[in-house]
Amino acid sequence: MHGEITIINARLFAPDTAEGFTADGFISIAAGRISALGPMAGYVPSPAAEVIDARGDLVMPGLVNGHNHAAMTLFRGMADDLPLMDWLTQHIFPAEARFVTPEMVYWCTRLAAAEMIMSGTTTVADAYFYEDEAARALVESGMRAVAAQGVIDFPAPGVPDPAENVAAAARFIERWQGHELLVPAVFAHSPYTCSSRTLVAAKELARARQVPFFIHLAETGAERALLAEKWQGSPTSYLHSLGLLDSQTVCVHAVWLDEHDIALLAASRAAVVTCPQSNMKLAAGIAPVAELLAAGIRVGLGTDGCASNNDLDLFSEMDTCAKLHKVQALNPAAVKAREVLRMATVQGAGLPGFAGGGVLAAGMPADVILVRLDQPHLTPFYAVDNLVYAASGADVQSVIINGRLIMADRKILTFDVAEAMEVVRRMAAEVGGIRHPL
Amino acid sequence: MHGEITIINARLFAPDTAEGFTADGFISIAAGRISALGPMAGYVPSPAAEVIDARGDLVMPGLVNGHNHAAMTLFRGMADDLPLMDWLTQHIFPAEARFVTPEMVYWCTRLAAAEMIMSGTTTVADAYFYEDEAARALVESGMRAVAAQGVIDFPAPGVPDPAENVAAAARFIERWQGHELLVPAVFAHSPYTCSSRTLVAAKELARARQVPFFIHLAETGAERALLAEKWQGSPTSYLHSLGLLDSQTVCVHAVWLDEHDIALLAASRAAVVTCPQSNMKLAAGIAPVAELLAAGIRVGLGTDGCASNNDLDLFSEMDTCAKLHKVQALNPAAVKAREVLRMATVQGAGLPGFAGGGVLAAGMPADVILVRLDQPHLTPFYAVDNLVYAASGADVQSVIINGRLIMADRKILTFDVAEAMEVVRRMAAEVGGIRHPL
Repeated sequence: MHGEITIINARLFAPDTAEGFTADGFISIAAGRISALGPMAGYVPSPAAEVIDARGDLVMPGLVNGHNHAAMTLFRGMADDLPLMDWLTQHIFPAEARFVTPEMVYWCTRLAAAEMIMSGTTTVADAYFYEDEAARALVESGMRAVAAQGVIDFPAPGVPDPAENVAAAARFIERWQGHELLVPAVFAHSPYTCSSRTLVAAKELARARQVPFFIHLAETGAERALLAEKWQGSPTSYLHSLGLLDSQTVCVHAVWLDEHDIALLAASRAAVVTCPQSNMKLAAGIAPVAELLAAGIRVGLGTDGCASNNDLDLFSEMDTCAKLHKVQALNPAAVKAREVLRMATVQGAGLPGFAGGGVLAAGMPADVILVRLDQPHLTPFYAVDNLVYAASGADVQSVIINGRLIMADRKILTFDVAEAMEVVRRMAAEVGGIRHPL
Repeated sequence: MHGEITIINARLFAPDTAEGFTADGFISIAAGRISALGPMAGYVPSPAAEVIDARGDLVMPGLVNGHNHAAMTLFRGMADDLPLMDWLTQHIFPAEARFVTPEMVYWCTRLAAAEMIMSGTTTVADAYFYEDEAARALVESGMRAVAAQGVIDFPAPGVPDPAENVAAAARFIERWQGHELLVPAVFAHSPYTCSSRTLVAAKELARARQVPFFIHLAETGAERALLAEKWQGSPTSYLHSLGLLDSQTVCVHAVWLDEHDIALLAASRAAVVTCPQSNMKLAAGIAPVAELLAAGIRVGLGTDGCASNNDLDLFSEMDTCAKLHKVQALNPAAVKAREVLRMATVQGAGLPGFAGGGVLAAGMPADVILVRLDQPHLTPFYAVDNLVYAASGADVQSVIINGRLIMADRKILTFDVAEAMEVVRRMAAEVGGIRHPL
């Protein structure tokens, strides 16, 4: 267990107030949880606590990235601005077949962890193959994670025989269940890359082990058209018919939904993670986020992997999310900054498998970040809305996860970031050597 | 005139190559212009030059912000997520009437200059009132600028009598014409806030003095509907009928255009500046950027003012621009990263009144920036597309404008940034005291 930390002279995130913060406060952390907080007037020094003077920085809950394929940092910018099928079949799939190894997953996830921590993310839901290696990299970084082993009906990295895909996920869960910082999970790739039998088996595994179930759902119009042809219905109604939608299921993307689909998601208490920048870059479409929120569905925010974003900065993702849905609806009051802040904090932290929290309150997990406000682009600072509309990940100064100081003054304390960059650069030199010229 | 500078051990921006850069080069600057550049093998030290070791940083042309109301930093985040008319009539207009003074314009533009320089912008087109004060702040900061005095048929800051609006602009032009770094210009607010007589008089002034003419055009559906009612045509066809469209006119926003409007803009050789984040946040709409580029129209990129963005980071603006038009067209190959990089560099630098350049080549104005690539979120770096999709303004390390070192290792050398923040914070305390609770 980690020692006590007290942050003093901080603005404390308080989204229920007009400004969204209270000036000049302290927050105390002990045994991995927030133990006390309030105005500096009520601060009583504890001799055991390490004291961090925030000097006016904002202290807020760490951000929750609801969807990532962290190891895909290796493919960041490898192939941009291409037609979707070219991108997938000529660039991403061949590169994955050739370059995804346990070593690649470990080091590229480590690099992703550095990027996430440095931009204020304290919890991530990862989904990939060789997920043991991803889990190891995430746990070593000090991040909190939900790590999901991929299930797909094609030969996949580490799972050459698709008949073994659910069994591989079962072994992964067995190895990680009960870890302090990491919850194992199942990631069924999608309704169009898994048979109904595989989908049902994967969900049964998740139910039996009481772990979350993630799936890419209704990402593209092509997927919706395919399901309409094969199943005579929407991707969402297909999952519902298979019994896959419940409170432990997270539907990622959820772009191509109709009213009936939204009603099914709401009634089943399934959650959604939206990835607006990935959906924009791949031209998948715009998710009906305002409608999902109005239906009472829990909506988290995700970056998706680096091949389709190309970064893991949730501050930038929040900005895009709030703006995109305004222009979609031609309504500047749609999907407000405060709602998006909730998606990236308390809503995300409450996704199935996640640790809860996402608010500054006594008893909550001590996953908090310090944001430097004393900078031109955050001046003046009337309200926390500017965390969405003007801040970027580079404004995060320090990061505490599970009560442990993981980054101080932008230096990561848990592992050697330069080494991770160097190893991934060497791997990228191989990738770059074979990639198609753009 | 400033001394010689040579940057060594740099990656040089070269968008005509597959990666968009050439590794391990040098670039020499003298008398405000790029004097030589090439591979390090050909570097010959000059005893007179200050040497900057880039240590692998990317050297690229400084970014050009084609539209800003810089002084509106004071209103950054003052009133977000409101219906458009509430925002304008209950928040922005009253705040402008009460708080826009010469002192406010000077200090808040100074703060904006700090933010722009720190995010890699070397040239800005500003448009506001008390523009002398904005011009003074911009020139003192060392930025290159086109500064346009606002013309509007309402009482405005510094121009209480609208009958004097064009005369005020004329006096402004007189005072600044011939400045080394700053080109004065006219900014007619819009087709719906200026009479046809004012619009024609403002354009005549610009023609007579040979200065650029800026106008907000076709920003919202409401503007298009209004013009359809009053003039039985589109805002663009209205400007065309008044003889306002020519190669010295810059149409800002240009969202609500039909095919005929695009043809008029192309035929008249008028330029466009698109402000995607502002258009999204205010829910104005999505400009037809792919169609404008296909028609051969020069399209620059702008942030618009801080009240509707809420920052001045052109890296973030490039990211949004490239992604937004992909999802709009449901085509991931639409408006490529390379095209957006051109909009923010060579296209912007060639807007009327601007200094040209925007490319690294001998003889071009020495407006260059150093971008730190040795960071997790820019690793690996296969190609310059990641300047659009993964970089942010915070990655800019150093800035040279007109051959002068303006920022080194993120420290601005030309003025006291902390003082500007402090003054604006005091002004904001007044604004915050009266603002409506959100």
